[in-house]
Amino acid sequence: MTTLLRNCRPMGGTAADLLIEGEVITAIGAGLPAPEGATLLDGQGMLALPAFVEGHTHLDKSRWGMGWWVNEVGPRLIDRIDTERATRRGGFDPATQSARLAREFLARGTTRIRSFADVDTEIGTAHSDALVALREALRGTMDIQVVAFPQSGLLVRPGTLELLDQALRNGADIVGGLDPSGIDRDPKGHLDAVFGLSEKHGKPLDIHLHEPGELGAFALELTIERTLALGMQGQVVLSHAFCLGDVARAPALYAALAEAGIAVATTAPPSRAVPSVRAMRAAGGRIFAGNDGIRDTWTPYNMPDMLQRAMLVGLKNEFRRDDEIAWALATVTDWAAEGCGFAAYGLAVGARADLVLVEAETVAEAVVATPPRRLVLSHGRVVARDGVLAS
Amino acid sequence: MTTLLRNCRPMGGTAADLLIEGEVITAIGAGLPAPEGATLLDGQGMLALPAFVEGHTHLDKSRWGMGWWVNEVGPRLIDRIDTERATRRGGFDPATQSARLAREFLARGTTRIRSFADVDTEIGTAHSDALVALREALRGTMDIQVVAFPQSGLLVRPGTLELLDQALRNGADIVGGLDPSGIDRDPKGHLDAVFGLSEKHGKPLDIHLHEPGELGAFALELTIERTLALGMQGQVVLSHAFCLGDVARAPALYAALAEAGIAVATTAPPSRAVPSVRAMRAAGGRIFAGNDGIRDTWTPYNMPDMLQRAMLVGLKNEFRRDDEIAWALATVTDWAAEGCGFAAYGLAVGARADLVLVEAETVAEAVVATPPRRLVLSHGRVVARDGVLAS
Ligand SMILES: [Zn+2]
Ligand SMILES: [Zn+2]
Repeated sequence: MTTLLRNCRPMGGTAADLLIEGEVITAIGAGLPAPEGATLLDGQGMLALPAFVEGHTHLDKSRWGMGWWVNEVGPRLIDRIDTERATRRGGFDPATQSARLAREFLARGTTRIRSFADVDTEIGTAHSDALVALREALRGTMDIQVVAFPQSGLLVRPGTLELLDQALRNGADIVGGLDPSGIDRDPKGHLDAVFGLSEKHGKPLDIHLHEPGELGAFALELTIERTLALGMQGQVVLSHAFCLGDVARAPALYAALAEAGIAVATTAPPSRAVPSVRAMRAAGGRIFAGNDGIRDTWTPYNMPDMLQRAMLVGLKNEFRRDDEIAWALATVTDWAAEGCGFAAYGLAVGARADLVLVEAETVAEAVVATPPRRLVLSHGRVVARDGVLAS
Repeated sequence: MTTLLRNCRPMGGTAADLLIEGEVITAIGAGLPAPEGATLLDGQGMLALPAFVEGHTHLDKSRWGMGWWVNEVGPRLIDRIDTERATRRGGFDPATQSARLAREFLARGTTRIRSFADVDTEIGTAHSDALVALREALRGTMDIQVVAFPQSGLLVRPGTLELLDQALRNGADIVGGLDPSGIDRDPKGHLDAVFGLSEKHGKPLDIHLHEPGELGAFALELTIERTLALGMQGQVVLSHAFCLGDVARAPALYAALAEAGIAVATTAPPSRAVPSVRAMRAAGGRIFAGNDGIRDTWTPYNMPDMLQRAMLVGLKNEFRRDDEIAWALATVTDWAAEGCGFAAYGLAVGARADLVLVEAETVAEAVVATPPRRLVLSHGRVVARDGVLAS
């Protein structure tokens, strides 16, 4: 199939046409001739952006579309974990919910998602397996990476390591880790275990690191040491890494992360100090963004809308200039694709034709105003118009 | 005019009808009989909220609808002030812009606004006068409070005090102050001057206090001292008051503010520490929210949408439980009306019929999802449907 998308403005530049052959953008330019039999799309002078990348979410936890769940959870971490377990037992289907949320992402212009999936001794590999099945079902429309994630702890909950191993054998793409000291009480043991799984399966690693201050910085250093020792540069992500917002020696840590090829995933929460996008980039490192949970028992906030996330990244990092706000967008586009390892990405010749049209004059306007998605293309096909999926 | 709004759910409670006679809600209950000749409105079971209150904005600075302005401003405060002055000279009409933004607020369900208006030796009282004229033009549809605001400094810019005095004589409602040490370099002198104006005109006071840490806390204490000495409890607002997020002795300051009847207006910016909504309320004090500038040369962010502001307040304060998220909404509804002194407010018998209908199951859902405003009533009249103004 050949498509000619006429009169859109890639990244807010001058009007251009995009020629799409099969799944691939094969030409970008003004006044491209329409090949015989090509499908014509009118971009109406709208802003064209590459389709978005969700770099950190939990599709398997969301209660999106299930009716409002009144949050009366206590303030402690254990209250949240216990509540989630209890509500999960009351008829929660991770397959249905993951598929539902993935479709909401697609309708709002996101075609690539890295999602964690809980693995524990109560549910076994069911969530991870459900996400692997969803990944396969959506192949050709969305790219989903599945992280097998020990939400309830790894070493503290015997049997979990074996279940993670099983989830990876069942097709999960990435090994997940979690607060080596805060939850597992054994930073060396936890990190040795997850790096071991990563090495055994030849799969990348993504570690939730909520630990604050010097405790988090210690785990971060242990992660750097193992990454270098195993030659895993480019294969490791630290999610949250709040400690980078806490410690005075953060500049040295940004540099060490960059050198070890470890990327940072941030949700840019307004309520606490976080890694600085500017500092991480200045150090030559990689940083990208994600929502984390969306409307689950942990938090009612967040939307399957990466433009809203970019806005929050921009606000958090005090990006006011247009060139700075373009960085905020990059955390949910180019930098997220690079950090997660999604291939053939971008609004360029040779990239896969995944793109979004919105009514906005500039990239910065799209970020601050989060306008409706007028048209979403995935793999060269129109998949949504005005927020409504084509099928 | 009599209107019966049937089948809405006030604050997410059970379905009810609202009887509106003239501007006032005169009955709320299930199955109210329709009076002879009453206009009937179908609430379709939607969530009903009181119309929103914008507690701190700058209508006179916004470039909304003027075409995108590329922000290339330098990082210093003086860069921002200089840039604003320069762009203002290039054909910026505060009357047009204020009216435009006020209408956008109305379309999204806000009927009461406290707006600052720049007063300085270059523009004189023109912005304040324009806002006073807008206030009069919108009387009966929106309530606008005009704060005469020395954005460029008061004592450091001789002639400004006289201009503020003139703006107040011309009809501005409130005396504005600004960073007594940071800008005016004379905390005693600045505060004596603005309290003096306030006393002279018998008008309330609203002071921008960006000053951090102990410098801000000092200005806050000086403000408390003067408020108590002049018996101005309930007449003074401190906007931003970032210092409350900075100093360890904040608990004593919250208590002192509460005792002096000084309210705090917050924008809840993600990028820095701010006053805690929970702590201020726990101390018995008043706190409410506003956008600050919207799409101006200071910042491209922010929307004339108080549900989005409530979401940001909720995220900033880590309000996750439904009862906490109701507080976030209160910062743009009840608490803002109380803090600004807007009368006849609320979704209750005897209050003015200013209300909003949205598709949401609960108050919390309305805050986290910022759904479109299906219906907006002001003064008992339908003023907007689906984001489009009736006239
Ligand atoms: Zn997470
Ligand atoms: Zn302001």
